[in-house]
Amino acid sequence: MDAEKRKAIDLFYHPRTVALVGVSRSAGFGHGLPRFLIDLGWGDRIYPVNPKVDEIEGIRAYPSIRDVPVDIDLACIMVPARFVEGVLKECIAKGVKAVIVMTAGFAEVGPEGKKMQDSLTRLVREAGIRMVGPNCIGIVDVPNGFGTTEILLKDIQPGNISMVAQSGVFGNILLDGAPAQEVRIAKVATIGNRADLDETDFLAYYGDDPDTGVIVLYMESIRRGRDFLETAREVSRKKPVLAYLGGQTEAGRMATSSHTGSMAGFGRLDKDVLRQAGVWIAADPVELFETAKVFSLCPLPRGKRVLTVTASGSLGVMAADRIVEEGLGFAELSPSGLSALREKAPAWMNLANPLDVGPSGLFRAAMDVAFQDPGVDAVIAFPVIPWTVIAPVLHGDPAAAGEMFVDGTLLEKAMREKPVILSVPGHPEWREACSRSLFPGAPILPTPQAAAGALGALYRYARWREKGTG
Amino acid sequence: MDAEKRKAIDLFYHPRTVALVGVSRSAGFGHGLPRFLIDLGWGDRIYPVNPKVDEIEGIRAYPSIRDVPVDIDLACIMVPARFVEGVLKECIAKGVKAVIVMTAGFAEVGPEGKKMQDSLTRLVREAGIRMVGPNCIGIVDVPNGFGTTEILLKDIQPGNISMVAQSGVFGNILLDGAPAQEVRIAKVATIGNRADLDETDFLAYYGDDPDTGVIVLYMESIRRGRDFLETAREVSRKKPVLAYLGGQTEAGRMATSSHTGSMAGFGRLDKDVLRQAGVWIAADPVELFETAKVFSLCPLPRGKRVLTVTASGSLGVMAADRIVEEGLGFAELSPSGLSALREKAPAWMNLANPLDVGPSGLFRAAMDVAFQDPGVDAVIAFPVIPWTVIAPVLHGDPAAAGEMFVDGTLLEKAMREKPVILSVPGHPEWREACSRSLFPGAPILPTPQAAAGALGALYRYARWREKGTG
Repeated sequence: MDAEKRKAIDLFYHPRTVALVGVSRSAGFGHGLPRFLIDLGWGDRIYPVNPKVDEIEGIRAYPSIRDVPVDIDLACIMVPARFVEGVLKECIAKGVKAVIVMTAGFAEVGPEGKKMQDSLTRLVREAGIRMVGPNCIGIVDVPNGFGTTEILLKDIQPGNISMVAQSGVFGNILLDGAPAQEVRIAKVATIGNRADLDETDFLAYYGDDPDTGVIVLYMESIRRGRDFLETAREVSRKKPVLAYLGGQTEAGRMATSSHTGSMAGFGRLDKDVLRQAGVWIAADPVELFETAKVFSLCPLPRGKRVLTVTASGSLGVMAADRIVEEGLGFAELSPSGLSALREKAPAWMNLANPLDVGPSGLFRAAMDVAFQDPGVDAVIAFPVIPWTVIAPVLHGDPAAAGEMFVDGTLLEKAMREKPVILSVPGHPEWREACSRSLFPGAPILPTPQAAAGALGALYRYARWREKGTG
Repeated sequence: MDAEKRKAIDLFYHPRTVALVGVSRSAGFGHGLPRFLIDLGWGDRIYPVNPKVDEIEGIRAYPSIRDVPVDIDLACIMVPARFVEGVLKECIAKGVKAVIVMTAGFAEVGPEGKKMQDSLTRLVREAGIRMVGPNCIGIVDVPNGFGTTEILLKDIQPGNISMVAQSGVFGNILLDGAPAQEVRIAKVATIGNRADLDETDFLAYYGDDPDTGVIVLYMESIRRGRDFLETAREVSRKKPVLAYLGGQTEAGRMATSSHTGSMAGFGRLDKDVLRQAGVWIAADPVELFETAKVFSLCPLPRGKRVLTVTASGSLGVMAADRIVEEGLGFAELSPSGLSALREKAPAWMNLANPLDVGPSGLFRAAMDVAFQDPGVDAVIAFPVIPWTVIAPVLHGDPAAAGEMFVDGTLLEKAMREKPVILSVPGHPEWREACSRSLFPGAPILPTPQAAAGALGALYRYARWREKGTG
């Protein structure tokens, strides 16, 4: 991406000053934004614009953006659709460089709206400034503690996953659910009708962004197909790109047109072409985020030899089935690892892979071997235990629960060398303990199938990168 | 199922007296069972058997089952494997009719164990009594407040879903997770190595069981293929049968053999044959339970015309895609329903299906129409809303939140006439409010894809039943 465009997009995430044009004191769209930004510590950098009031949340309001006494980097426009063009002209006259048009009612409502939208595009192109939207909720930058989307930013843990969401509301909903899904976020852009900046621009931007390690896209169509593919291929060489594509059927495509004004949709061919460009495609939004979590937390595997460690045979069986389906392989333990386990193992325990430790109490010993054995490229582990057995331990002496399952120091070291992916079905409190205390930093997926599926995606991406091409 | 066998299986779920043979006072397998049963109100009906102690949890213990002074309906055997045969002989001599052998270390550990197991089978067959196990954790009967599996029975809501799980530990884990997944349970049987009673027996039993409305199977192989298929076909005419099949690949099959001593596994063919017998097959355990929830709570649809109501266009797009893939159709609203909505709808709102109400505030109005329109066979609804918008309403006046989304009385009536399935991604607290207060009784699935997928399963089952054959 050229330096000029990158600098222009930087302004959306790191503005020095922000005008909120059309924000009101009464309930309505964007009404909470001033309070939201004040709580984030941006009170001295925001400038409400509303001709009907003098102040909002204790901050002076200006009748027009032209009256704001400082230079404005970013203007968020939320006036009714018919006033947007006039406000945009004022922003341009004021010298604003970055504009987010949140207002809906453009291309997604019909030809009339499309015409209005085209005027906005013309205006920003002529002025040489950049616009996000219309029909969106703007951007979020978690590490910078800034956003134009009223989400509970304090609940979202900063991470290295950045997202482009075509839909504003859906992007918001995904972020509302991110903390519970343990998904850690860097940057977000909801791009709506993308009358100027689009998915290809943000994909390229995230490709260069030092905060971003994993890129997630929720798209209902691709605007500039050829540019997008070229950018995806280039960015995928540096960072994984994961996508969910809505509108894969005729009915789905019709639904997208009234939603974000896009018409193209996706067919079977497009998916294959995207895959060749290195893009991984999710079956649903849960899989999208869960897999992003694995890419975000795990190194790429050096090979495909997986060791599964489980305390329930059934989960090992499920993982084995999916490992085969994903084209992964089964690690064989080295003689030293095997003999370390054989010494402790009861007669009934089968030292095969999946390694089902059952009630032997050897889960931790098996994990130690899995972490250290150089013949193991990746570990899938199911530290499950009946809740009535572990609850008294957990409530009495949580450290003792850890002792039973994993050595934290070895885990931390292993996580730098090979993927370690868990699934912990059963009681939510045990899963929580695994996530917070026992296996901090290791991704926990909903099912053995999802764990093996995400590992498959990670492995195929590693191979794609090695080959250097689609 | 013949009346005699049914009566024999009844004894496992409704015993008058229960002997716990081999239960100990110190930690170990089954150690908590006496306390568990006392807490369930079974203190006066349990008889610990252990020659080394006089009492356990304040209840008198007997040196041998022959010393127990009352008739015993059900004996749970948890002595080490080498003593099981002797204890079983004593149980038979005592006149016990139902035996659960929990002890592991039989066919699943090798030929020697298989021989020991075959002896148990011979003994119970000669005596004309029935056995569950070995290598299992027995049964659970939620409505009867009884179980031999130490789970938090009080947390599990009674419902009409009954389960056969080949694996004991996995069955336990599934039950530990059931309350959080809002799955309501009737009966459970974990059958382990099924040296006597097997999946076909319990399938037939659940088919006749008045507490059971939906049957769920977790199997790693089918023991009597032909009998099973015949039973599945027969039971499916009365009740839905949903299955997850572990061991679908060679590697998975190898893993099952050391787990529950089964060798057969499943191939592609078996799945098709099962489907022809009316059985629905899940891709993973989450899908298994989520779909069971939908079967458990929804009536069968009369047709395939689905109306999707959403507050986020993206979710409508995803649902539309999956509706097509499932072979379902799109309902057209009747003129009266359409005009009722058109009166209130803002100009930008598109009254198509999926019905995306956006921020119009018309979610409840749309649901009213969906519930009452006779042209709508099923409703998929996404009552999503950004958390920062709904949190103050929910925390201030929860009833007002309900007012915005649904009329409880109409929902209750509609739920008797057509499937109403939700998905509520976003903040967990909002999902919880939808589940507990706004949409009580309506199944909430993890994604739009899962909601439409479960509806597809429901519709295909309804058609299978109509045709009366595979």
